[in-house]
Amino acid sequence: MARMVYIGGKPSVERRALASGRIILKRETLDAIRKGDIKKGDVLQAAQLAGIQAAKRCPDIVPLCHPVPLTSVDVSLEHEDDGIRASCDVRADYRTGVEMEALCGVAGALLCVWDMVKYIEKDATGNYPSAAITDIRVLSKEKGEPAPGKRAGGKMAASRKSKMR
Amino acid sequence: MARMVYIGGKPSVERRALASGRIILKRETLDAIRKGDIKKGDVLQAAQLAGIQAAKRCPDIVPLCHPVPLTSVDVSLEHEDDGIRASCDVRADYRTGVEMEALCGVAGALLCVWDMVKYIEKDATGNYPSAAITDIRVLSKEKGEPAPGKRAGGKMAASRKSKMR
Amino acid sequence: MARMVYIGGKPSVERRALASGRIILKRETLDAIRKGDIKKGDVLQAAQLAGIQAAKRCPDIVPLCHPVPLTSVDVSLEHEDDGIRASCDVRADYRTGVEMEALCGVAGALLCVWDMVKYIEKDATGNYPSAAITDIRVLSKEKGEPAPGKRAGGKMAASRKSKMR
Amino acid sequence: MARMVYIGGKPSVERRALASGRIILKRETLDAIRKGDIKKGDVLQAAQLAGIQAAKRCPDIVPLCHPVPLTSVDVSLEHEDDGIRASCDVRADYRTGVEMEALCGVAGALLCVWDMVKYIEKDATGNYPSAAITDIRVLSKEKGEPAPGKRAGGKMAASRKSKMR
Amino acid sequence: MARMVYIGGKPSVERRALASGRIILKRETLDAIRKGDIKKGDVLQAAQLAGIQAAKRCPDIVPLCHPVPLTSVDVSLEHEDDGIRASCDVRADYRTGVEMEALCGVAGALLCVWDMVKYIEKDATGNYPSAAITDIRVLSKEKGEPAPGKRAGGKMAASRKSKMR
Amino acid sequence: MARMVYIGGKPSVERRALASGRIILKRETLDAIRKGDIKKGDVLQAAQLAGIQAAKRCPDIVPLCHPVPLTSVDVSLEHEDDGIRASCDVRADYRTGVEMEALCGVAGALLCVWDMVKYIEKDATGNYPSAAITDIRVLSKEKGEPAPGKRAGGKMAASRKSKMR
Repeated sequence: MARMVYIGGKPSVERRALASGRIILKRETLDAIRKGDIKKGDVLQAAQLAGIQAAKRCPDIVPLCHPVPLTSVDVSLEHEDDGIRASCDVRADYRTGVEMEALCGVAGALLCVWDMVKYIEKDATGNYPSAAITDIRVLSKEKGEPAPGKRAGGKMAASRKSKMR
Repeated sequence: MARMVYIGGKPSVERRALASGRIILKRETLDAIRKGDIKKGDVLQAAQLAGIQAAKRCPDIVPLCHPVPLTSVDVSLEHEDDGIRASCDVRADYRTGVEMEALCGVAGALLCVWDMVKYIEKDATGNYPSAAITDIRVLSKEKGEPAPGKRAGGKMAASRKSKMR
Repeated sequence: MARMVYIGGKPSVERRALASGRIILKRETLDAIRKGDIKKGDVLQAAQLAGIQAAKRCPDIVPLCHPVPLTSVDVSLEHEDDGIRASCDVRADYRTGVEMEALCGVAGALLCVWDMVKYIEKDATGNYPSAAITDIRVLSKEKGEPAPGKRAGGKMAASRKSKMR
Repeated sequence: MARMVYIGGKPSVERRALASGRIILKRETLDAIRKGDIKKGDVLQAAQLAGIQAAKRCPDIVPLCHPVPLTSVDVSLEHEDDGIRASCDVRADYRTGVEMEALCGVAGALLCVWDMVKYIEKDATGNYPSAAITDIRVLSKEKGEPAPGKRAGGKMAASRKSKMR
Repeated sequence: MARMVYIGGKPSVERRALASGRIILKRETLDAIRKGDIKKGDVLQAAQLAGIQAAKRCPDIVPLCHPVPLTSVDVSLEHEDDGIRASCDVRADYRTGVEMEALCGVAGALLCVWDMVKYIEKDATGNYPSAAITDIRVLSKEKGEPAPGKRAGGKMAASRKSKMR
Repeated sequence: MARMVYIGGKPSVERRALASGRIILKRETLDAIRKGDIKKGDVLQAAQLAGIQAAKRCPDIVPLCHPVPLTSVDVSLEHEDDGIRASCDVRADYRTGVEMEALCGVAGALLCVWDMVKYIEKDATGNYPSAAITDIRVLSKEKGEPAPGKRAGGKMAASRKSKMR
């Protein structure tokens, strides 16, 4: 049976997670995004906001996630040859990791891109021969050590070679 | 500049969209799911509910989506060799297509799977060497014709060879 | 496996549901409510608003409920000998009944009452020897007939002796 | 006038609340649930998820409740002779008790059960002669003592003979 | 006592409302917005998205508002001599007007502007000597006539000299 | 590009913000509010609840705001000669100020007032010749000092002559 597992015994430490993912789009769509020619508005700006909101709404979207007081959410979008990459960097000083928040941020950003370019990606039958959201991964996670006296701003021990900028 | 485009001029017709996507997982994780050995509970059941809720919350997650009175949401999950596939079939009798709702449903279901198996997928450094959400696509869309007198239950003209069950 | 069942084939008709329920409280608490002496504010007014909001949030609270465009929500609260009764009367012109919305409204109103009188109901150990929410029922449902030409305002055929005011 | 009262002066301590409640159902319905024969899906699994989500959404449902960073939510459902019992066990390390969260969890779970068995419980007129949600109570509450140096994982002083498993 | 009033008797017609409002800001802040020098990002783009989301969330923010299936939301922001003006144009084909949605959209957009320029507007004590949100008004409303046979796209009778673009 | 800026390095201290704003209404409307003659219910009570809920929903309404564990929200409404003034006093023991929460509370309260008196304020064409929301300002902010050992209840250093009651 499902449960939101107990995290009260874990200490609050600096947590950070970076996730990214891609949406594959037609060249024509990518060109229109670059030129700012999309009917619904500036795609990358809207996707960024959508990603930040989705990261904050993680405990609403993912039923067994704890509410986490996020201290930072940074979503970036960049053009690639065959699509757009979204990355989401989330931080918190809390008892549980924030990779689900970062993944939600990536998914929210990419869904927003899709929505805004629907009318170019659709074929004559209303279907999407090329569009796909893919490669949503957690790129890196970091975790600080519990500070003895003061809780905030503890030095962070990278749990793996960080890919964060 | 971003806008939620005008759809008031479009007639209400039967709409349907089927989307699917996959999460790639370790064999060990897939076995644990199959055996019902996951600490947080029954993964496929929880993911299904998460998907349905995410489809309903589409206008919240995707900023430029219209609120749509969905008449049906069906999420299914099935084991594949190297992961789990989530499919989401959404219907509405409305002025705009429901593919974004179906895509949100798939993303929500797969994010829920990830959350529940985190502890098996993580390596010693807390990172995820194999887990990935991938191949989120719209498989098919259908659209009815505006009924002359009565609005509901119009016969649907498949806009493409349907893959729906 | 869970699904939000298809209602697209059902015609839109006038729907109405009345639900009610009770919270059992100590005499001392009931007196304080009547005198307007509750620290957090006017209990019945707050509970009424809470009930209306909960009825609107039904598809969020109840995972398999459809979003329904409610045309009216009326919550009333009245003192009884040993507690407070909340009633919620909901209407919609739609394809599915609104009893879940009415039940959510009742539950929301009664939970709000509990929250506001916690400090009087608690005993010395912080527990609640008498408080209980009970008797949440659907009192009556009505359903109109599909109008042949025009959809709104169809005459309603009472499906049972109505208890509505 | 209503207010969300000041809790900033209260220390963060381990808090726990257990609530439960019942939905009374027909024997036929209970049998169908047990056999997994319910059209909308597995009732107890869905109700569990609904309960967890409702506990997390407590500050949304109950207007004067504070947002609380819950560290655990556990909802369980069990068959009784004449219905289903839902229990919700909530924990937090915070400045205010979590009984409202536990009560929301119970209410959410029971409302979800009702929704899924509507079609069996309804009589020919669409009404519910037997279904009722009842006996929603707080079974026990516990509260730890403020830790002098470290905040998390403080030993808990049971404020009453605990009924928790 | 509060109620969400019955609108079921009113016919669905084309509705439109335009609202606007202003935030007064320092010249220094306006220059930074114009130059794209604001630390949190592009202010007008973010405010636009915030406004659209707030318009959609109107029944959540305004307790007695009905859920309305909006067919369009258009938020625009423009520089004025001493601040930024936000306008929100909302449409629906429904039983009740959409001015509250338009007002929510304006308020949401202006609140987002404030949030993003906080650090420039604050004085040394952390207070805001000049910033103010003001002049939030409904500029115009329009209402179509119920179409005899077909519901959508009815000709609109302007209820006042329209100021819409 | 937009971001939810990093606040993890800032210490948790007592924070407080007081905001207020006004809605200008017709004398006739103000009289009806005072007499309790408004069709939708008690305006000031409903507005107060709406304000409290809006303050809590600030990170939802304002996209780049952090989720903040508020310890108190107090909304008050008072009659003025030509309208109603709403004030919102918010507190938290956290890493970032709470003025956006206070501003959201004011905006939510005033929007609720408008909604409830629409039918008196409207002229024959459905427009609003006099109603306006105006003068939404932050009246004062206070910020405590980080406590060395214990975090809660730190002495507060007023950052400006406080106007709080």
